[in-house]
Amino acid sequence: MKSHRKELWFETRSRREYINITHKVQEAIDEAGVSEGLVLVNAMHITASVYINDDESGLIQDYDDWLEQLAPHEPVSHYRHNRTGEDNGDAHLKRQIMGRQVVVAITSSRLDLGPWEQIFYAEFDGRRRKRVLVKIIGE
Amino acid sequence: MKSHRKELWFETRSRREYINITHKVQEAIDEAGVSEGLVLVNAMHITASVYINDDESGLIQDYDDWLEQLAPHEPVSHYRHNRTGEDNGDAHLKRQIMGRQVVVAITSSRLDLGPWEQIFYAEFDGRRRKRVLVKIIGE
Amino acid sequence: MKSHRKELWFETRSRREYINITHKVQEAIDEAGVSEGLVLVNAMHITASVYINDDESGLIQDYDDWLEQLAPHEPVSHYRHNRTGEDNGDAHLKRQIMGRQVVVAITSSRLDLGPWEQIFYAEFDGRRRKRVLVKIIGE
Repeated sequence: MKSHRKELWFETRSRREYINITHKVQEAIDEAGVSEGLVLVNAMHITASVYINDDESGLIQDYDDWLEQLAPHEPVSHYRHNRTGEDNGDAHLKRQIMGRQVVVAITSSRLDLGPWEQIFYAEFDGRRRKRVLVKIIGE
Repeated sequence: MKSHRKELWFETRSRREYINITHKVQEAIDEAGVSEGLVLVNAMHITASVYINDDESGLIQDYDDWLEQLAPHEPVSHYRHNRTGEDNGDAHLKRQIMGRQVVVAITSSRLDLGPWEQIFYAEFDGRRRKRVLVKIIGE
Repeated sequence: MKSHRKELWFETRSRREYINITHKVQEAIDEAGVSEGLVLVNAMHITASVYINDDESGLIQDYDDWLEQLAPHEPVSHYRHNRTGEDNGDAHLKRQIMGRQVVVAITSSRLDLGPWEQIFYAEFDGRRRKRVLVKIIGE
Protein backbone atom coordinates (compact mmCIF):
# COMPACT_ATOMS: atom_id res chain seq x y z
CA MET A 1 0.00 0.00 0.00
CA LYS A 2 1.26 3.45 -0.95
CA SER A 3 0.38 6.65 0.85
CA HIS A 4 0.98 10.27 0.01
CA ARG A 5 0.28 13.52 1.86
CA LYS A 6 0.07 17.04 0.53
CA GLU A 7 -1.08 20.39 1.88
CA LEU A 8 -2.72 23.03 -0.29
CA TRP A 9 -2.50 26.60 1.05
CA PHE A 10 -4.94 29.45 0.46
CA GLU A 11 -5.25 33.09 1.43
CA THR A 12 -8.45 34.56 0.08
CA ARG A 13 -8.99 38.29 -0.42
CA SER A 14 -12.57 38.26 0.82
CA ARG A 15 -14.23 36.70 3.85
CA ARG A 16 -16.05 34.09 1.78
CA GLU A 17 -14.74 32.51 -1.39
CA TYR A 18 -15.22 29.31 -3.44
CA ILE A 19 -12.15 27.90 -5.21
CA ASN A 20 -12.07 24.98 -7.65
CA ILE A 21 -9.19 22.72 -6.53
CA THR A 22 -9.89 19.70 -8.74
CA HIS A 23 -6.69 19.98 -10.78
CA LYS A 24 -4.58 20.39 -7.62
CA VAL A 25 -6.00 17.16 -6.22
CA GLN A 26 -5.26 15.37 -9.51
CA GLU A 27 -1.69 16.70 -9.35
CA ALA A 28 -1.29 15.14 -5.89
CA ILE A 29 -2.51 11.81 -7.28
CA ASP A 30 0.02 12.06 -10.12
CA GLU A 31 2.79 12.67 -7.57
CA ALA A 32 1.62 9.73 -5.46
CA GLY A 33 1.80 7.28 -8.35
CA VAL A 34 -1.36 5.58 -7.11
CA SER A 35 -3.58 4.01 -9.76
CA GLU A 36 -6.30 2.43 -7.57
CA GLY A 37 -7.31 3.82 -4.18
CA LEU A 38 -9.00 6.61 -2.30
CA VAL A 39 -8.18 10.27 -1.83
CA LEU A 40 -9.34 12.19 1.24
CA VAL A 41 -9.53 15.98 0.80
CA ASN A 42 -10.37 17.93 3.96
CA ALA A 43 -10.24 21.46 5.28
CA MET A 44 -7.74 21.60 8.15
CA HIS A 45 -9.57 24.63 9.56
CA ILE A 46 -12.99 24.57 11.14
CA THR A 47 -14.45 27.59 9.34
CA ALA A 48 -13.95 26.20 5.83
CA SER A 49 -15.31 23.31 3.77
CA VAL A 50 -14.31 20.98 1.00
CA TYR A 51 -17.31 19.97 -1.10
CA ILE A 52 -18.12 18.67 -4.57
CA ASN A 53 -20.54 20.39 -6.90
CA ASP A 54 -20.83 22.34 -10.15
CA ASP A 55 -18.39 25.06 -11.20
CA GLU A 56 -21.13 27.47 -12.27
CA SER A 57 -21.01 31.06 -11.04
CA GLY A 58 -24.77 31.42 -10.53
CA LEU A 59 -24.88 28.30 -8.38
CA ILE A 60 -21.95 29.49 -6.27
CA GLN A 61 -23.82 32.76 -5.62
CA ASP A 62 -26.92 30.71 -4.75
CA TYR A 63 -24.91 28.74 -2.19
CA ASP A 64 -23.51 31.91 -0.70
CA ASP A 65 -26.94 33.55 -0.37
CA TRP A 66 -28.48 30.40 1.07
CA LEU A 67 -25.73 29.88 3.66
CA GLU A 68 -26.03 33.52 4.69
CA GLN A 69 -29.76 33.00 5.12
CA LEU A 70 -29.34 29.80 7.18
CA ALA A 71 -26.50 31.23 9.33
CA PRO A 72 -26.18 35.02 8.90
CA HIS A 73 -22.90 36.73 9.69
CA GLU A 74 -24.67 39.70 11.33
CA PRO A 75 -25.41 40.45 14.07
CA VAL A 76 -22.14 38.97 15.29
CA SER A 77 -23.46 39.26 18.86
CA HIS A 78 -26.02 36.56 17.99
CA TYR A 79 -23.36 33.86 18.39
CA ARG A 80 -22.07 32.90 21.85
CA HIS A 81 -18.84 31.82 20.16
CA ASN A 82 -18.15 35.45 19.25
CA ARG A 83 -17.95 36.37 22.96
CA THR A 84 -14.46 34.83 22.79
CA GLY A 85 -13.46 37.83 20.65
CA GLU A 86 -14.10 36.13 17.30
CA ASP A 87 -16.56 37.30 14.67
CA ASN A 88 -16.74 33.97 12.82
CA GLY A 89 -19.54 32.15 14.67
CA ASP A 90 -21.52 32.00 11.43
CA ALA A 91 -18.57 30.43 9.57
CA HIS A 92 -18.53 27.42 11.94
CA LEU A 93 -22.22 26.83 11.12
CA LYS A 94 -21.94 27.38 7.37
CA ARG A 95 -19.10 24.86 7.25
CA GLN A 96 -21.31 22.12 8.75
CA ILE A 97 -23.85 22.52 5.91
CA MET A 98 -21.19 22.24 3.19
CA GLY A 99 -19.10 19.59 4.99
CA ARG A 100 -15.49 19.18 6.11
CA GLN A 101 -14.23 16.62 3.62
CA VAL A 102 -14.80 14.61 0.50
CA VAL A 103 -13.55 11.12 -0.26
CA VAL A 104 -13.07 10.38 -3.96
CA ALA A 105 -12.19 7.14 -5.72
CA ILE A 106 -8.99 6.88 -7.74
CA THR A 107 -9.39 4.63 -10.79
CA SER A 108 -6.70 4.12 -13.45
CA SER A 109 -4.67 6.97 -11.85
CA ARG A 110 -7.51 9.51 -12.26
CA LEU A 111 -10.05 11.13 -9.97
CA ASP A 112 -13.15 9.00 -10.57
CA LEU A 113 -15.65 11.86 -10.83
CA GLY A 114 -19.03 12.17 -12.52
CA PRO A 115 -19.38 14.49 -15.53
CA TRP A 116 -20.03 17.71 -13.56
CA GLU A 117 -18.31 16.90 -10.27
CA GLN A 118 -15.69 19.48 -9.29
CA ILE A 119 -13.90 19.68 -5.95
CA PHE A 120 -14.18 23.03 -4.17
CA TYR A 121 -12.51 24.70 -1.23
CA ALA A 122 -15.09 26.94 0.44
CA GLU A 123 -13.73 29.66 2.69
CA PHE A 124 -16.08 31.25 5.22
CA ASP A 125 -13.56 33.22 7.28
CA GLY A 126 -10.70 34.11 4.98
CA ARG A 127 -8.10 36.83 4.54
CA ARG A 128 -5.47 34.71 6.30
CA ARG A 129 -3.40 31.66 5.39
CA LYS A 130 -5.31 28.40 5.71
CA ARG A 131 -4.85 24.94 4.31
CA VAL A 132 -6.40 21.76 2.95
CA LEU A 133 -5.04 18.25 3.47
CA VAL A 134 -4.87 15.76 0.62
CA LYS A 135 -4.20 12.19 1.76
CA ILE A 136 -3.97 9.39 -0.75
CA ILE A 137 -3.85 5.66 -0.10
CA GLY A 138 -3.81 2.86 -2.63
CA GLU A 139 -1.58 1.02 -5.04
CA MET B 1 -4.62 -4.49 -1.46
CA LYS B 2 -7.67 -5.31 -3.56
CA SER B 3 -9.89 -2.74 -5.20
CA HIS B 4 -13.23 -3.01 -6.94
CA ARG B 5 -15.42 -0.51 -8.81
CA LYS B 6 -19.07 -0.71 -9.66
CA GLU B 7 -21.68 1.72 -10.97
CA LEU B 8 -25.34 1.56 -9.94
CA TRP B 9 -27.78 3.18 -12.38
CA PHE B 10 -31.13 4.78 -11.60
CA GLU B 11 -33.92 6.45 -13.50
CA THR B 12 -36.64 7.62 -11.14
CA ARG B 13 -40.21 8.31 -12.23
CA SER B 14 -40.60 11.43 -10.10
CA ARG B 15 -38.40 14.45 -9.54
CA ARG B 16 -37.50 13.43 -5.98
CA GLU B 17 -37.16 9.85 -4.77
CA TYR B 18 -35.41 7.93 -1.98
CA ILE B 19 -34.14 4.42 -2.80
CA ASN B 20 -32.66 1.88 -0.38
CA ILE B 21 -29.47 0.57 -2.02
CA THR B 22 -27.99 -1.32 0.95
CA HIS B 23 -28.26 -4.76 -0.64
CA LYS B 24 -26.71 -3.52 -3.89
CA VAL B 25 -23.68 -2.23 -2.00
CA GLN B 26 -23.38 -5.57 -0.17
CA GLU B 27 -23.50 -7.33 -3.56
CA ALA B 28 -20.56 -5.22 -4.76
CA ILE B 29 -18.61 -6.24 -1.64
CA ASP B 30 -19.39 -9.89 -2.32
CA GLU B 31 -18.08 -9.48 -5.89
CA ALA B 32 -14.92 -7.74 -4.62
CA GLY B 33 -14.02 -10.58 -2.27
CA VAL B 34 -12.86 -8.05 0.31
CA SER B 35 -13.24 -9.07 3.96
CA GLU B 36 -11.64 -6.06 5.71
CA GLY B 37 -11.65 -2.56 4.23
CA LEU B 38 -13.69 0.48 3.33
CA VAL B 39 -16.42 1.09 0.81
CA LEU B 40 -17.08 4.53 -0.64
CA VAL B 41 -20.57 5.08 -2.06
CA ASN B 42 -21.12 8.42 -3.79
CA ALA B 43 -23.56 10.08 -6.13
CA MET B 44 -21.79 10.80 -9.43
CA HIS B 45 -24.28 13.61 -10.12
CA ILE B 46 -24.45 16.88 -8.24
CA THR B 47 -28.20 16.98 -7.69
CA ALA B 48 -28.38 13.69 -5.80
CA SER B 49 -27.14 12.33 -2.48
CA VAL B 50 -26.06 9.12 -0.86
CA TYR B 51 -26.88 9.08 2.84
CA ILE B 52 -27.48 6.64 5.68
CA ASN B 53 -30.61 6.66 7.81
CA ASP B 54 -33.76 4.71 8.62
CA ASP B 55 -35.93 2.98 6.01
CA GLU B 56 -39.19 4.30 7.46
CA SER B 57 -41.72 5.90 5.12
CA GLY B 58 -42.80 8.63 7.56
CA LEU B 59 -39.21 9.73 8.08
CA ILE B 60 -38.56 9.82 4.33
CA GLN B 61 -41.59 12.10 3.92
CA ASP B 62 -40.26 14.24 6.81
CA TYR B 63 -36.92 14.61 5.02
CA ASP B 64 -38.65 15.56 1.79
CA ASP B 65 -40.84 18.20 3.47
CA TRP B 66 -37.90 19.61 5.42
CA LEU B 67 -35.61 19.85 2.39
CA GLU B 68 -38.39 21.56 0.43
CA GLN B 69 -38.74 24.05 3.30
CA LEU B 70 -34.97 24.73 3.48
CA ALA B 71 -34.52 24.98 -0.30
CA PRO B 72 -37.89 25.22 -2.11
CA HIS B 73 -38.17 24.19 -5.74
CA GLU B 74 -40.49 27.14 -6.55
CA PRO B 75 -40.15 29.85 -7.61
CA VAL B 76 -37.50 28.50 -9.96
CA SER B 77 -36.54 32.12 -10.77
CA HIS B 78 -35.27 32.44 -7.17
CA TYR B 79 -32.07 30.60 -8.11
CA ARG B 80 -29.42 32.29 -10.24
CA HIS B 81 -28.35 28.82 -11.41
CA ASN B 82 -31.70 28.46 -13.18
CA ARG B 83 -30.84 31.39 -15.48
CA THR B 84 -28.66 28.85 -17.32
CA GLY B 85 -31.91 27.19 -18.48
CA GLU B 86 -32.03 24.65 -15.64
CA ASP B 87 -34.84 24.34 -13.10
CA ASN B 88 -32.83 22.35 -10.56
CA GLY B 89 -31.17 25.07 -8.46
CA ASP B 90 -32.97 23.74 -5.38
CA ALA B 91 -31.65 20.22 -6.02
CA HIS B 92 -28.02 21.41 -5.75
CA LEU B 93 -28.83 22.89 -2.32
CA LYS B 94 -30.85 19.93 -1.03
CA ARG B 95 -27.99 17.61 -1.96
CA GLN B 96 -25.56 19.55 0.28
CA ILE B 97 -27.80 18.97 3.33
CA MET B 98 -28.02 15.22 2.72
CA GLY B 99 -24.42 14.80 1.53
CA ARG B 100 -22.63 13.42 -1.52
CA GLN B 101 -21.15 10.23 -0.11
CA VAL B 102 -20.91 7.75 2.70
CA VAL B 103 -17.90 5.69 3.71
CA VAL B 104 -18.72 2.41 5.42
CA ALA B 105 -16.46 -0.14 7.09
CA ILE B 106 -16.27 -3.68 5.75
CA THR B 107 -15.75 -6.25 8.51
CA SER B 108 -15.75 -10.02 7.96
CA SER B 109 -16.97 -9.43 4.37
CA ARG B 110 -20.08 -7.55 5.53
CA LEU B 111 -21.17 -3.91 5.61
CA ASP B 112 -20.42 -2.94 9.22
CA LEU B 113 -23.65 -1.04 9.90
CA GLY B 114 -25.55 -0.24 13.10
CA PRO B 115 -28.93 -1.90 13.69
CA TRP B 116 -31.02 0.67 11.75
CA GLU B 117 -28.47 2.00 9.31
CA GLN B 118 -29.57 1.70 5.68
CA ILE B 119 -27.82 3.25 2.67
CA PHE B 120 -30.03 5.46 0.49
CA TYR B 121 -29.75 7.07 -2.91
CA ALA B 122 -31.66 10.37 -2.76
CA GLU B 123 -32.68 11.83 -6.10
CA PHE B 124 -33.58 15.53 -6.24
CA ASP B 125 -33.72 16.00 -10.03
CA GLY B 126 -34.73 12.68 -11.49
CA ARG B 127 -36.57 11.33 -14.51
CA ARG B 128 -33.30 10.67 -16.34
CA ARG B 129 -30.51 8.10 -16.09
CA LYS B 130 -28.06 8.85 -13.27
CA ARG B 131 -25.55 6.78 -11.35
CA VAL B 132 -23.81 6.02 -8.09
CA LEU B 133 -20.20 4.90 -7.74
CA VAL B 134 -19.24 2.09 -5.37
CA LYS B 135 -15.48 1.85 -4.77
CA ILE B 136 -14.08 -0.81 -2.46
CA ILE B 137 -10.55 -1.11 -1.14
CA GLY B 138 -9.21 -3.64 1.33
CA GLU B 139 -8.10 -7.22 1.61
CA MET C 1 -2.59 -3.76 4.80
CA LYS C 2 -3.60 -3.71 8.45
CA SER C 3 -7.11 -3.12 9.70
CA HIS C 4 -8.51 -2.51 13.16
CA ARG C 5 -12.06 -2.13 14.49
CA LYS C 6 -13.21 -0.63 17.75
CA GLU C 7 -16.56 0.43 19.20
CA LEU C 8 -16.95 3.38 21.54
CA TRP C 9 -20.04 3.28 23.77
CA PHE C 10 -21.96 6.25 25.19
CA GLU C 11 -24.96 6.79 27.41
CA THR C 12 -25.68 10.50 27.82
CA ARG C 13 -27.70 11.93 30.69
CA SER C 14 -29.56 14.45 28.55
CA ARG C 15 -31.34 14.15 25.22
CA ARG C 16 -28.68 16.17 23.39
CA GLU C 17 -24.99 16.18 24.21
CA TYR C 18 -21.66 16.90 22.48
CA ILE C 19 -18.65 14.78 23.54
CA ASN C 20 -15.04 15.25 22.46
CA ILE C 21 -13.77 11.79 21.42
CA THR C 22 -10.46 12.82 19.81
CA HIS C 23 -8.25 11.06 22.35
CA LYS C 24 -10.31 7.87 22.13
CA VAL C 25 -9.81 7.77 18.36
CA GLN C 26 -6.06 8.32 18.83
CA GLU C 27 -6.04 5.41 21.32
CA ALA C 28 -7.59 3.16 18.69
CA ILE C 29 -4.86 4.18 16.23
CA ASP C 30 -2.22 3.37 18.84
CA GLU C 31 -3.76 -0.08 19.33
CA ALA C 32 -3.88 -0.64 15.56
CA GLY C 33 -0.19 0.05 15.09
CA VAL C 34 -0.94 1.86 11.83
CA SER C 35 1.43 4.69 10.88
CA GLU C 36 -0.01 5.69 7.47
CA GLY C 37 -3.65 5.28 6.55
CA LEU C 38 -7.21 6.42 7.09
CA VAL C 39 -9.55 6.23 10.05
CA LEU C 40 -13.32 6.20 9.61
CA VAL C 41 -15.32 7.32 12.65
CA ASN C 42 -19.10 6.98 12.32
CA ALA C 43 -22.19 6.99 14.48
CA MET C 44 -23.76 3.51 14.35
CA HIS C 45 -27.13 5.05 15.25
CA ILE C 46 -29.20 7.26 12.98
CA THR C 47 -30.04 9.97 15.51
CA ALA C 48 -26.43 10.87 16.29
CA SER C 49 -23.49 12.43 14.44
CA VAL C 50 -19.74 12.36 14.35
CA TYR C 51 -18.33 15.71 13.26
CA ILE C 52 -15.15 17.78 13.53
CA ASN C 53 -15.08 21.29 14.89
CA ASP C 54 -13.89 23.44 17.79
CA ASP C 55 -14.09 22.37 21.46
CA GLU C 56 -15.48 25.72 22.61
CA SER C 57 -18.53 25.76 24.87
CA GLY C 58 -20.10 28.86 23.28
CA LEU C 59 -19.89 27.32 19.82
CA ILE C 60 -21.40 24.06 21.03
CA GLN C 61 -24.36 26.02 22.43
CA ASP C 62 -24.59 27.89 19.11
CA TYR C 63 -24.80 24.57 17.27
CA ASP C 64 -27.46 23.31 19.63
CA ASP C 65 -29.60 26.46 19.26
CA TRP C 66 -29.20 26.47 15.50
CA LEU C 67 -30.11 22.80 15.07
CA GLU C 68 -33.16 23.31 17.28
CA GLN C 69 -34.16 26.23 15.06
CA LEU C 70 -33.68 24.25 11.81
CA ALA C 71 -35.41 21.11 13.13
CA PRO C 72 -37.29 21.79 16.39
CA HIS C 73 -38.05 18.93 18.77
CA GLU C 74 -41.55 20.31 19.51
CA PRO C 75 -44.25 19.84 18.51
CA VAL C 76 -43.42 16.14 18.21
CA SER C 77 -46.64 15.69 16.19
CA HIS C 78 -45.02 17.74 13.42
CA TYR C 79 -43.00 14.72 12.29
CA ARG C 80 -44.67 11.81 10.51
CA HIS C 81 -41.91 9.58 11.85
CA ASN C 82 -43.23 10.15 15.37
CA ARG C 83 -46.54 8.45 14.45
CA THR C 84 -44.57 5.20 14.83
CA GLY C 85 -44.49 5.93 18.59
CA GLU C 86 -41.10 7.69 18.54
CA ASP C 87 -40.47 11.27 19.61
CA ASN C 88 -37.12 11.61 17.83
CA GLY C 89 -38.13 12.80 14.36
CA ASP C 90 -36.12 16.00 14.89
CA ALA C 91 -33.02 13.98 15.82
CA HIS C 92 -32.96 12.25 12.42
CA LEU C 93 -32.98 15.70 10.74
CA LYS C 94 -30.40 17.30 13.03
CA ARG C 95 -28.06 14.40 12.37
CA GLN C 96 -28.12 15.05 8.61
CA ILE C 97 -26.89 18.64 9.16
CA MET C 98 -23.97 17.55 11.33
CA GLY C 99 -23.19 14.38 9.36
CA ARG C 100 -22.84 10.67 10.08
CA GLN C 101 -19.08 10.23 9.80
CA VAL C 102 -15.66 11.75 9.46
CA VAL C 103 -12.66 10.30 7.67
CA VAL C 104 -9.30 11.47 9.02
CA ALA C 105 -5.78 10.87 7.72
CA ILE C 106 -3.26 8.99 9.85
CA THR C 107 0.29 10.29 9.34
CA SER C 108 3.31 9.10 11.35
CA SER C 109 0.94 7.18 13.69
CA ARG C 110 -1.03 10.33 14.62
CA LEU C 111 -4.41 11.79 13.70
CA ASP C 112 -3.50 14.32 11.00
CA LEU C 113 -5.69 17.17 12.25
CA GLY C 114 -5.50 20.93 11.83
CA PRO C 115 -4.71 23.10 14.87
CA TRP C 116 -8.30 23.40 16.16
CA GLU C 117 -9.84 20.23 14.75
CA GLN C 118 -11.44 18.03 17.40
CA ILE C 119 -13.61 14.97 16.77
CA PHE C 120 -17.04 15.06 18.43
CA TYR C 121 -19.82 12.61 19.06
CA ALA C 122 -23.11 14.52 18.89
CA GLU C 123 -26.07 12.85 20.54
CA PHE C 124 -29.57 14.03 19.55
CA ASP C 125 -31.65 11.28 21.21
CA GLY C 126 -29.69 10.10 24.20
CA ARG C 127 -30.31 8.59 27.61
CA ARG C 128 -29.67 5.07 26.30
CA ARG C 129 -26.61 3.07 25.26
CA LYS C 130 -25.39 3.93 21.77
CA ARG C 131 -22.13 3.48 19.94
CA VAL C 132 -19.59 4.81 17.47
CA LEU C 133 -17.52 2.68 15.09
CA VAL C 134 -13.82 3.35 14.57
CA LYS C 135 -12.37 1.51 11.58
CA ILE C 136 -8.71 1.92 10.67
CA ILE C 137 -6.94 0.77 7.53
CA GLY C 138 -3.33 1.34 6.56
CA GLU C 139 0.18 0.15 7.24
